[in-house]
Order: sequence, then C-alpha cells, then structure tokens
Amino acid sequence: MTGVVVTKIERADKEVVDGLGACGVATVHESQGRTGLLASYMRPIYSGARIGASAVTISVPPGDNYMVHAAIEQCQDGDVLVIAPTSPCEDGYFGDLLATSAQARGVRGLIIDAGVRDVRDLKEMDFPVWSKRIFAQGTIKASLGSVNVPVVCASAYIEPGDVIVADDDGVCVVKRADAVTVLEAARKREANEGSKRQQLADGVLGLDMYGFRQKLTDMGLKWI
Amino acid sequence: MTGVVVTKIERADKEVVDGLGACGVATVHESQGRTGLLASYMRPIYSGARIGASAVTISVPPGDNYMVHAAIEQCQDGDVLVIAPTSPCEDGYFGDLLATSAQARGVRGLIIDAGVRDVRDLKEMDFPVWSKRIFAQGTIKASLGSVNVPVVCASAYIEPGDVIVADDDGVCVVKRADAVTVLEAARKREANEGSKRQQLADGVLGLDMYGFRQKLTDMGLKWI
Amino acid sequence: MTGVVVTKIERADKEVVDGLGACGVATVHESQGRTGLLASYMRPIYSGARIGASAVTISVPPGDNYMVHAAIEQCQDGDVLVIAPTSPCEDGYFGDLLATSAQARGVRGLIIDAGVRDVRDLKEMDFPVWSKRIFAQGTIKASLGSVNVPVVCASAYIEPGDVIVADDDGVCVVKRADAVTVLEAARKREANEGSKRQQLADGVLGLDMYGFRQKLTDMGLKWI
Amino acid sequence: MTGVVVTKIERADKEVVDGLGACGVATVHESQGRTGLLASYMRPIYSGARIGASAVTISVPPGDNYMVHAAIEQCQDGDVLVIAPTSPCEDGYFGDLLATSAQARGVRGLIIDAGVRDVRDLKEMDFPVWSKRIFAQGTIKASLGSVNVPVVCASAYIEPGDVIVADDDGVCVVKRADAVTVLEAARKREANEGSKRQQLADGVLGLDMYGFRQKLTDMGLKWI
Amino acid sequence: MTGVVVTKIERADKEVVDGLGACGVATVHESQGRTGLLASYMRPIYSGARIGASAVTISVPPGDNYMVHAAIEQCQDGDVLVIAPTSPCEDGYFGDLLATSAQARGVRGLIIDAGVRDVRDLKEMDFPVWSKRIFAQGTIKASLGSVNVPVVCASAYIEPGDVIVADDDGVCVVKRADAVTVLEAARKREANEGSKRQQLADGVLGLDMYGFRQKLTDMGLKWI
Amino acid sequence: MTGVVVTKIERADKEVVDGLGACGVATVHESQGRTGLLASYMRPIYSGARIGASAVTISVPPGDNYMVHAAIEQCQDGDVLVIAPTSPCEDGYFGDLLATSAQARGVRGLIIDAGVRDVRDLKEMDFPVWSKRIFAQGTIKASLGSVNVPVVCASAYIEPGDVIVADDDGVCVVKRADAVTVLEAARKREANEGSKRQQLADGVLGLDMYGFRQKLTDMGLKWI
Repeated sequence: MTGVVVTKIERADKEVVDGLGACGVATVHESQGRTGLLASYMRPIYSGARIGASAVTISVPPGDNYMVHAAIEQCQDGDVLVIAPTSPCEDGYFGDLLATSAQARGVRGLIIDAGVRDVRDLKEMDFPVWSKRIFAQGTIKASLGSVNVPVVCASAYIEPGDVIVADDDGVCVVKRADAVTVLEAARKREANEGSKRQQLADGVLGLDMYGFRQKLTDMGLKWI
Repeated sequence: MTGVVVTKIERADKEVVDGLGACGVATVHESQGRTGLLASYMRPIYSGARIGASAVTISVPPGDNYMVHAAIEQCQDGDVLVIAPTSPCEDGYFGDLLATSAQARGVRGLIIDAGVRDVRDLKEMDFPVWSKRIFAQGTIKASLGSVNVPVVCASAYIEPGDVIVADDDGVCVVKRADAVTVLEAARKREANEGSKRQQLADGVLGLDMYGFRQKLTDMGLKWI
Repeated sequence: MTGVVVTKIERADKEVVDGLGACGVATVHESQGRTGLLASYMRPIYSGARIGASAVTISVPPGDNYMVHAAIEQCQDGDVLVIAPTSPCEDGYFGDLLATSAQARGVRGLIIDAGVRDVRDLKEMDFPVWSKRIFAQGTIKASLGSVNVPVVCASAYIEPGDVIVADDDGVCVVKRADAVTVLEAARKREANEGSKRQQLADGVLGLDMYGFRQKLTDMGLKWI
Repeated sequence: MTGVVVTKIERADKEVVDGLGACGVATVHESQGRTGLLASYMRPIYSGARIGASAVTISVPPGDNYMVHAAIEQCQDGDVLVIAPTSPCEDGYFGDLLATSAQARGVRGLIIDAGVRDVRDLKEMDFPVWSKRIFAQGTIKASLGSVNVPVVCASAYIEPGDVIVADDDGVCVVKRADAVTVLEAARKREANEGSKRQQLADGVLGLDMYGFRQKLTDMGLKWI
Repeated sequence: MTGVVVTKIERADKEVVDGLGACGVATVHESQGRTGLLASYMRPIYSGARIGASAVTISVPPGDNYMVHAAIEQCQDGDVLVIAPTSPCEDGYFGDLLATSAQARGVRGLIIDAGVRDVRDLKEMDFPVWSKRIFAQGTIKASLGSVNVPVVCASAYIEPGDVIVADDDGVCVVKRADAVTVLEAARKREANEGSKRQQLADGVLGLDMYGFRQKLTDMGLKWI
Repeated sequence: MTGVVVTKIERADKEVVDGLGACGVATVHESQGRTGLLASYMRPIYSGARIGASAVTISVPPGDNYMVHAAIEQCQDGDVLVIAPTSPCEDGYFGDLLATSAQARGVRGLIIDAGVRDVRDLKEMDFPVWSKRIFAQGTIKASLGSVNVPVVCASAYIEPGDVIVADDDGVCVVKRADAVTVLEAARKREANEGSKRQQLADGVLGLDMYGFRQKLTDMGLKWI
C-alpha cells in the first residue's frame, strides 16, 4: 500500500465542514458520542486558531518528508494536511516554505504526529499547526510513503476526506459520512447550553439545575 | 471514605490567603523550607494569572465528574477547586459551564491533576486553571467520589482549607495551620530581595555579595 | 575534573555570533548538515525571543546551584549560560536574582537542562530562557561543579565558547571553529529561499519547482 | 456505536493464524511491508510467550471492565482479547479470574492498551498478556462499551478477526484479508534467512554478502 | 520539619502485617475500597518477591542519601524502608552495602521513588526493591532530611508505621489503623474467589455467574 | 562529517577493558568521580549479562541501519557496537542476523539509543544488548552516517575506543585515556568494600562505621 497517491477523494460539504469548525472540538467530540479525539499531546503552536477542514492524509517514513510535496498537489481550498509517520518520530517535517505552498492552495492548517519548525514564521503567516513537537530537525527525501490512504494519527483513525476540527482544546476527527448528523447534534447542543450558562451564572447550582442532588443522594452520597 | 461531602471546613483568614497569593509560588515555597510544590507538569492554561485561595478538594473516579457539581455547592468566595482522580487520568473533567457556576460563587480557579477543556472560553472568562493536560475528552456521571477529604494531587498532599498559591511558576500548597507563619517569612524574604536585586543590577557579583568566593575556595574550587 | 573554573575561553567573533543568531535555529541546523540541535523538550519560557551567543558552560550537581554564581563572573557581553546537571533534575536552579546579575554582565539568556523559576519576572526583564521545565523547586549550595568544561546538555555536546542559537524552534549549538563557515552556508541558504518562497506563494508546486515529480515517478510512486 | 456486541465475526483459517504466530513479530511485520506494529510500550508481562490468534476486540470506557465479560462469551478457541480504552488509562482491567474464564474458552492471551494485574498468577497459568502497564488499580462496572468493533489499540487500527502475532518483540496485527499472503511472504523470508545466517556466522560480512560495499562507495562513503 | 529522626513509631501487629503481605497487592487494594496504590512506575527489580512490612519513611534531598543511614538504625525486624525525595530524582540512593546493613536488622525490602543500583547483588541477597528506576548514579552526603515523617511516595501518602504490601503487581499502602479491618476484608475476598475461579474454569461465564447479562441488557447493550 | 568510516582507532589494553568489565557499572562510575553513565532508560534486554568492551561508534540517520553493516567490518575481538541516531528514534536497527555477524567478529554486545528486535534469539545467542526500546520496527538502507566518530549516546559523550562497561545496573563509559587509572581506583574501591560489608552484615551501623552520627548531629539532626 506504500507508494500511492490517491487523487480523488470525497469531501463533506463546505458549509458542513465550516459549521463543525465553528462548533469547536469539545462540542463536536461530545456530539458524536465522545469519540474522535486525537491524543492530548497534539497541541497548537500558537493559541487562538480554530479550523474545520477536510483531511488530506499523508503516511510518511520517519524523518522523510518527500510525500508532503506530493500531497500538496492533492489539496484544494478548505483542506488540512494530516501527517502520520510510520514509526514514532519528532523530526520537523514541515516549515515555512511548505506552509507557503499549502496556503497558496487554500490549505487551512496542518495536523502532524511529529515535529514542525519555523513556528515564528507560521504564526506570522497565520498558518496554524497542531503537532506532537516543535523541533527543527531536518528531514530527508529518500523514500516513498502514500497520500490519501487511511492513517492512525495520534491514536485516531483518519480517512481521507474526514472532517478535522481543531482549536485550543486539541484536534477531533469526524467521519465524513457522519458530518451532517454530527453538525446537527452539535448545534442542538450549543443551543441548549446558552440558557444553562445563564442560570449557572445567576448562581443556580448544577446540582439543582440538572437534578443531580436527588440522584447522588439515591446513590448514597452523604453530606457530613 | 468514598461517597462523602464534608460541608464544614476551616479556612485561613482572607488577608493571609491573599497575602500568600501576592507573594507568589517561588517565594512561598522557599519560605516554608522548600516544600509544598505540586509536580512540574501542572501548568497554567494561560500565562499571567496568579491566585491565593482556599482549597475545596475533590476526589474523583477516573473519567467521572459527578462530584465536581457537588463540590461547587461547598465553595465560597476566595476558594479554589482542587481535583484529584483516584487513578491517573487525563480526561477533561471541567469546562466553561462548570467554570461559570464556580465563578458565580466566587471561586478563583481550578487545580486539576487531569484534563480541562474549553480553554479559550476559560481564558476569556478570566478563570485560571492549572492542569496536567488540556484535553477535550468528556467524562460521565456514574460513580461517587468525595468532597473535602485529604487528597494527593500531583504529588502533593492537600487537605481541605489548605492555602493554594498558583502562578506562572506552578502551584504550591501551604498547610492552613502554617499560613500565618509562612506569610511572615515570605514577606521578610521579599523585603530582603529588593536591596540584593539592586546590588546585582549594579554589577556586584553574587560571589562577593553573599560571601561565596571564600566558601568555594575553602571547598577546593580552583580557578584555572 | 569537578571543582574547576576555567577563566579563559575562546569565543567566536561577535559579528559571527550575531549573524548566526539572526539566521535562526532551523537555518543554522540545516547549514551545518542537520546537526547540533538540543532535545526538543528544551522550550522557551516565552515566545518571540531569539539569540545568538557564546556559551559559558556549567556542570552542576542535581539540585545545587552554587556553580552558577561562579559562572556569572566568567561571563562577558554576548554570552549565554549553559547549565547541565550531572544527573537528570528538574529543580529551579535559576530565577530573577541570578538573571539580574547575569543581565548586568551582558548575558543574553540561559539554556538549562533542568528547571527555571520566576518566569513572569524573567519575561518582564526580557531575559529569555530555554529549559526542560518551569519549576519553582529551590536548590541548595553545598557541592562543587565546574565552569567552562565540556558538557552534554539536552543530548548535545557543548564546549565553552561554542555558539548557541536559540529561538521559538528550540536550541542549536555551532562548534566555535565552524562558526564562520556555518554562517556563510546559512546566509547562502537564506538568499536561496527568497525566490523559492515567492514561487510557492504564486502557486508553483514544490513537485515541479524542485523537480521531484520525475524522481518520485522513477522511484515508483503511483497516482491512482 | 457504543453499546453493541457483534456476535458474528470472520476469522482467518486456524493454520494460517498458527503459521503467522510461529513466524513471529519481526518477520511478519517485515513481510507485510513494515506495517502493523503496536506501540513499543506494549510489553509482555513475562518473557518467552509467543502467540498467533484471532482478535476479539473490546472498546472500553476508562476504568470500567464490564464489557470484558461480554466479550469472553464471543471468544472461541484460538482467539485473543484486544482491549482498547476510549481515553488513556492504566487501570488493571484484567486479572486471574477473567483469565481463568478466557482460558476455559480457549483464549490464547490478552493485548491491552491499559493495565493488567495478578501477573504472578497469569504467569503460572501460562496466560500471556501484552500491556501498557502492570497496575493493580481496580475497575468498576457502570458503563457500556462495545465488543467486536474496530478499535485503535496502542496506535494500531485493529478490526475483529484480524490476526494478532505477539512475542518478546511486541505485538503486530495482520489484516484478516491479507493473512494468507503475509504468511507466504513470511515463510519465504524465513527460508531465505537460513543461508544468510550461516554465511554471517562464518565471518562473511554483510557489506559483501549483500553487495553494500559498492553501493555505499557510490553514495560517497569514505573510509579514512 | 526537616532534620528530624522520629525514634518511636507505632506498628501494626506482626501477624496482621504478614497476613496482608500474603494476600497480595491486588486483593488488599480492592479490600480497602480500591485505594492505596503507589504509581504504576514503581516496579520490582526482580520478579517473584512479595512482602508485607511496616514502613520506616525517609524524606531525602535529591541526590543525597545521608538520611538512609540514619533510618536503618530506626528499623526493626519486619520493617521496610520507604524513600521519597523532595523533588523528582532518579539517582541510585541505595545499593548492596546499605542492603546488607538493612537486612542485618531484619528489613524486608525497599520502596524508593528514585533509583537503586547493584541490582544483581540485591537479587542474590534476596533483598527485594520496588523503584522508579534502576540507575547507578551515585549520591552525596551533604544535607539533612528526615526519618519517620509522613511522605508522599510515588503519589501515595504514607505515614511511618503504615503497612506496605508489595509484589509483582506493584506496591500498596494500608493505613496502620485500618490494617486489621482490611486484612479481614481481604481474607473474606480471597475465600470468595475460590469457588468463582472453579466455576469460571468449568466454563461458566461471568455474564451468568455474576448476573451481568440481565443488567447489561437493561442498560441497553445490544447483541447484533 | 557524515559519510566517513574511520578505520583506525585506538583501544585500551584488553586486560584493562576486561578488568573494568569485571568491576561493574556502579563501581566504575564511582571510581571516576560519578561520571560516565548513560541515561537510565538504557536497559539490558535480559538480565545477568556484564561486559567490558571497546566502543566502535556508529552515527545513524533515524530509521536507517546501513551504517551498522559498515561498522561491523571495523570491529575486532573485544569490541562493542555503540549506535546513536541523529534524531530520537525507537526503530529496531538490529536483530539476530546482525548479531550473528557481529558475534563472528568477537563483538561482545550492543549499546543502542534506539530499538532492537529478535530479542528472544539474541538471548539464546548470548549476545547482550542495552537499548532504549525493544521494538520490531524495520529500518531502511538509504542514507549515509558515520562510523567511529564521537557520538552522544543516551546523554553520554562517547569517542571510538572508549571503554564501555555494562551490566544489570546500566551502561557506563570510561575515556580510553583514563582507563588504567579508573581501573586502579575501582579495584581499590572493591578491596575496601569487603570489610565494610562484613561489619554491616554483623550489625554495625553505617552511622557508626563511617562516623556519620557525629557529623549529622553537628549539622543539626535531631532524634525525637
């Protein structure tokens, strides 16, 4: 399966992708039954960025970023690069030149289970990255990998065209086929939260608002 | 001992708590004989926050935040929530709704040996958190824990009503009974540092100012 | 070899040191054959700082910062302190008083394979630090170490007078004897990147610009 | 997708499964293009065990082993349990009683991306386990998970019925559909290695046996 | 509180301590409500050892083992040394000479949240150790700590005289005051397990034996 | 400096190398002023092995073991291979075929700051390895590295021809030029320990035997 670039992938509708991005990681994750999170070590290189985007996946050998160049050609406006090495690696596969190229094609950011570099430039370019490490270690161009094949990235299984939602809370993947349903659930959840937030701000306790007091008493909780 | 909420806890005087918060983690830690620090993996979700507050402790099962709701009822103005799971966990027990509720009761922040989410909202709300992880993973509400019992949180033993000091350097706990003494020592230490800082800024060497040169020579240090 | 302070060390020329600092970690690392990086856990305590400086090295016992005072006397304008404990340690060897003293002598920052504290003050002072941890744990003054001896710091071998380059991407060391050559290579590299960046921004693919398409095809990459 | 037990799964032929187990992890991994390894933190609780078996997968909540009981009913002779928590966890989901039950059904071992306990008993029972941790922390029975759904376990994507190969080198998964092909490749590889091993034992250098000397020279390697 | 040796500590009765040791870590941990475990990184230096013993606690500075000598004098037959550094450390505080001395006083083993060395000799001496690391790094003798004060060791709060149970599953602490009750509960638990084990070995499913099938169905589990 | 094989290196005398190996890691480390240890994560793949040997060093790209073949040609009886990747890697660079080849040339073992595989075979062959990981991940042969150049391996600086001592306590390096002196010091240390061990076994306390009681009292230690 190594050595292929899949040139045709399905993507979710742009509005759905954008809608999921607007809902944010925590809401989307809850709305699909608490699934889809990438490992907590995936952190943004600067705070404040939030994206919804369609995954172009890249399976790469450790320390070799040849395939990233091949992947950029497959990107279109609204995509996000998702890079997963075939064995644990923290090398800096990606820097400002690749970001310039990706941004020119409308790529919204990068998810990489390895390292990234030139982070000062990337921040200035407003090109967000969620990565395992910030590390300047250079990579080589000697071996093939694949583009747009299923990958396990930071403990999550991601297929090309899946929707990636990322913000300061981390990264979440939504199966392409579930994107519409999850968006609906997420919006319902958001709508619900407004009035709850107000009540809590007014001093109503969650114990009472959610009816937890009775349930906890029934379970045997004792106030002493 | 599981399944209890202790409703009456002693707290240190507000001025003492505030005073310790103003001194900061490094000074307070030194002033009580270099003790009380929580593990270095406890990091603030945004920089610049600093608090002194009284601990309301919560012992929680892994991945279950039921008890946090019970704990908020026990909080009063000037408190801080201290959450310790009974086994290692990085789930996101706490987000913006709980923070809204806690803030409405005057809670100054959260110390959690696990994950937190909605960090963008928490920052906007100015609700500081020191946590092991930022992670959106949702929790359930199925099992009891306890509120206001002694806990080990990030390698520190914390009893309800102990004073928590937290800033960009991390988190430190001061035994409630020692709070007054430690504050005095901390203020003395601070008073001392002003003139030292000035001398060092003027180019006086610590070697000379502290009399280290002679001691090091006596210990056998050789300049070659 | 413990218990010595080497008082005479060679340094690279100021302009060379400054030039390397201006090129930054990623470029310098590439320009010397992808060598010299310190481990990726060495992170700046605040973003945006970038330095080039000559290393004054300090070998310290775990939890003992006596030698740091001895080292500051050996510093001159344009130096950087490089602290390496003799066994793994995350204690906070260095805070605002030592920074005040170091800054008064023209020291540009600190590289420490351990902890640092008073980070809020250090940021206000504009004294950058790259460290393994932020940790307030105080240290003692009981044992000797050495100043200006070769050390292994965060997996890199560093000799006194070597050039340290540090920025948001991490930390890189350049052998003093190689500094001029590496600077030349780094500048050549930078000059090269401008036109590439423009082409990529204009939408030219790296696949074409670098001639990778043919090579990848020859290696057997298949577009399907 | 939570709350289901899939009762019918396809398995590879017994001889194929056994054959892959006999080849061992390193050979099988190489024979399928260097893919399929679980993370290196998955270690056997005692050395010397080696198995090939069909995966019965279990997706479990953190700290809750209810589903393991449901899974055992789905097992048949020649299976292996594969447990993956929905968020990182090191609790001890599995001990000697569950092993007794599993062994009674012909289960050959356990792969768990979490903790295991009673390891002394498990060793005496000759019931091998590859786990992330050895940890006695007990679990509860309060929430549903699923049995025989696809899981990501220790960074590998595993579907029910896939073949698990495990020995002192770790754990490898072979897609059920690829099992026959991989076994053939593995056996070919093994056949090849015998004569190579003999030559190397006789002192022939790999440089010469594999023709590397010329290639390395062509690449520019210099003997000095 | 630093610089004291508490010479009088209470211990649980020898038979109780021995009884708890015979029950083992997993059983004892369950029998006291799933509490008391030390962190999972505490591993035995060789397999097969199991002890119950009374804790003589030692709070030590990082890299300084002076206090261990002071502690041995406080030991009596049936004790175990429990060493906790005041900041994270992996140095080798303890080797064969200290073990010889400890063993001469009837000490049954060592629990250390740091490093140990001479592990080959310790195994030959049959002196078991549960430690965070095996590391030969030598320590100094320059600073005071304390003996028989409460410590946090590997995330567990331990007071002098508490009962330590340790085996291949790790380490568990039982409060001295609870020792008798916990032993009773542990023995009851053990008695219960015999018949269960037999039924499971005979092929009865836990689903049926424990009545889980109905409960899971009521919770909504679906067999498909 | 990449792409060279240094064919002539100096080694310490065989008897010195063997002598150091017989003294073991802890003793040798102490005898050279508590220096030279490799990081504690370097563990033997099986217990009981102990070697003294001369280092043939190999600097390798991540995931590429081409250079190991070139290195074996440079080995002679009594050597040990020391492999250090240029960026963090846990791939399995080395297995039973390479071990067969190395053993045929008299190589005594392998020190690798990465992964190793075929550990069952290596144990049967009695070819000891100290590694960061056991991991079957295969490597490629695409890029050059170097043989017999200085490397940093697991935080230790090692030059070709340095003496490696390794046993169950870990790995220690002795500078070739210091080998004779260190051996003398180590033997003196060993001679000293015999009578101490006897006294301690007889129940004499270290407090008394070493005269610590008075010193500790002078430092302010209080028995209460």
